[in-house]
Amino acid sequence: MTTVPPSPPLRFTGEDTVREGVHSREFRLDADGRSVPGLLWTPEGAHGRRPLVLIGHGASNSKRQDYVLVVAHRLVRRYGFAAAAIDGPVHGDRRTDGVGSGPQVFLGFAQAWMDDPAMTDTMVADWRATLDGLRELPEVGEGPTGFWGLSMGTILGLPLVAAEPRITVAVLGLMGSTGPTRERIVADAPRVTCPVLFLVQWDDELFPRESALELFASLDAPEKRLVANLGSHAAVPDDVFDDTIGFLARRLPWPD
Amino acid sequence: MTTVPPSPPLRFTGEDTVREGVHSREFRLDADGRSVPGLLWTPEGAHGRRPLVLIGHGASNSKRQDYVLVVAHRLVRRYGFAAAAIDGPVHGDRRTDGVGSGPQVFLGFAQAWMDDPAMTDTMVADWRATLDGLRELPEVGEGPTGFWGLSMGTILGLPLVAAEPRITVAVLGLMGSTGPTRERIVADAPRVTCPVLFLVQWDDELFPRESALELFASLDAPEKRLVANLGSHAAVPDDVFDDTIGFLARRLPWPD
Repeated sequence: MTTVPPSPPLRFTGEDTVREGVHSREFRLDADGRSVPGLLWTPEGAHGRRPLVLIGHGASNSKRQDYVLVVAHRLVRRYGFAAAAIDGPVHGDRRTDGVGSGPQVFLGFAQAWMDDPAMTDTMVADWRATLDGLRELPEVGEGPTGFWGLSMGTILGLPLVAAEPRITVAVLGLMGSTGPTRERIVADAPRVTCPVLFLVQWDDELFPRESALELFASLDAPEKRLVANLGSHAAVPDDVFDDTIGFLARRLPWPD
Repeated sequence: MTTVPPSPPLRFTGEDTVREGVHSREFRLDADGRSVPGLLWTPEGAHGRRPLVLIGHGASNSKRQDYVLVVAHRLVRRYGFAAAAIDGPVHGDRRTDGVGSGPQVFLGFAQAWMDDPAMTDTMVADWRATLDGLRELPEVGEGPTGFWGLSMGTILGLPLVAAEPRITVAVLGLMGSTGPTRERIVADAPRVTCPVLFLVQWDDELFPRESALELFASLDAPEKRLVANLGSHAAVPDDVFDDTIGFLARRLPWPD
């Protein structure tokens, strides 16, 4: 008999590029039998451990969403951090039909959101397995970790932040105490005990402002900041992204 | 008979120092017979026109308030802007008793706030005369102008921003639709039509959060941003000051 070695927890597969000093690599990771597709961004030629930011994308999009790439590149280029994103449930490379984004993906998410009470638990488990795997990489290591996720990135990311003590600062928002997983969100909000910057769009057509303010109010963070901008759900001004990045960077000290 | 020349609209008097590249000068200005005491900050050796930010201080303090100096120095050093502050009613060098700050000054302000319906109009006139005078200086000139003022800086500054079309961006907050001049504030809020960043302290013991959110909602700015932080009236986190400065700087283009 031979001993079958355990499969490696995180393996690089597919895209491996360097652009403007940012090394971008696709990875796959096995979590409870699921193959989790992700992207890792690190400074070109990075050595040694560094702060890491996990980025959750929005519904009907993927780990390659425009603003995910913007946030990741700025974190790497300005601060030398690592950043990583994984596809959400029924999104991106988790799909077998090759449909990358759009209404069809959104409907699939809405279906999963309504039907599957385990969707949140599954995504939290995938994120935690991803964090385990990333911390074993010498160019990431066991440094301080932040989370950045809006809209679906908060629906699935707030429970992650609540559950994961290694995450010590978070950017959340574009979401309220509402939706099919309202009970889960409301139950987890007081368990978010790290500093949080929370984004609200004043005229959000998906999640009413009042529900967003209610969710913000129920976070039990020792330091929390609400940043609300005029406009619809998707109309977050570009300079707000910069402020969220600065908020994270100032709270993720470089590890010794 | 000889013709008496008009007194110069703005004259430098008293302090004239350079520290870390920031040229700080006291000035006096005559407005409707009032002698308005102010401070101007410009880059050392500045030539030519540049963006200008007017800074309104808080009650019981003066144009030398810690955060006024911080904001002014950062605007000058990071962006090469000019910044100016004048003492509020019954504050700073407008007082004849030499009491610079503290409860006695606060009580005096509260009295003026309750008794004198012209307090706001007087301060708006003083600011507009100051702006006239500053724009005649070659090292300031007729560049784009912003306003920054919290608490009393908003009580007196929101009406200024509403009245003054030369001000094209503002940082306001730590104030609600409340207080002795509530009617004036509420009437002027819809006349604020430039981009605004509005600060709220979630646990403000002076101006209830709901009244602050109400005031924010009633601003008619095409772009407005609410930034709310946990904590009491005076507990604005330091990095928020940075974000307010960035907000102004990005919206005050360098003049040709």
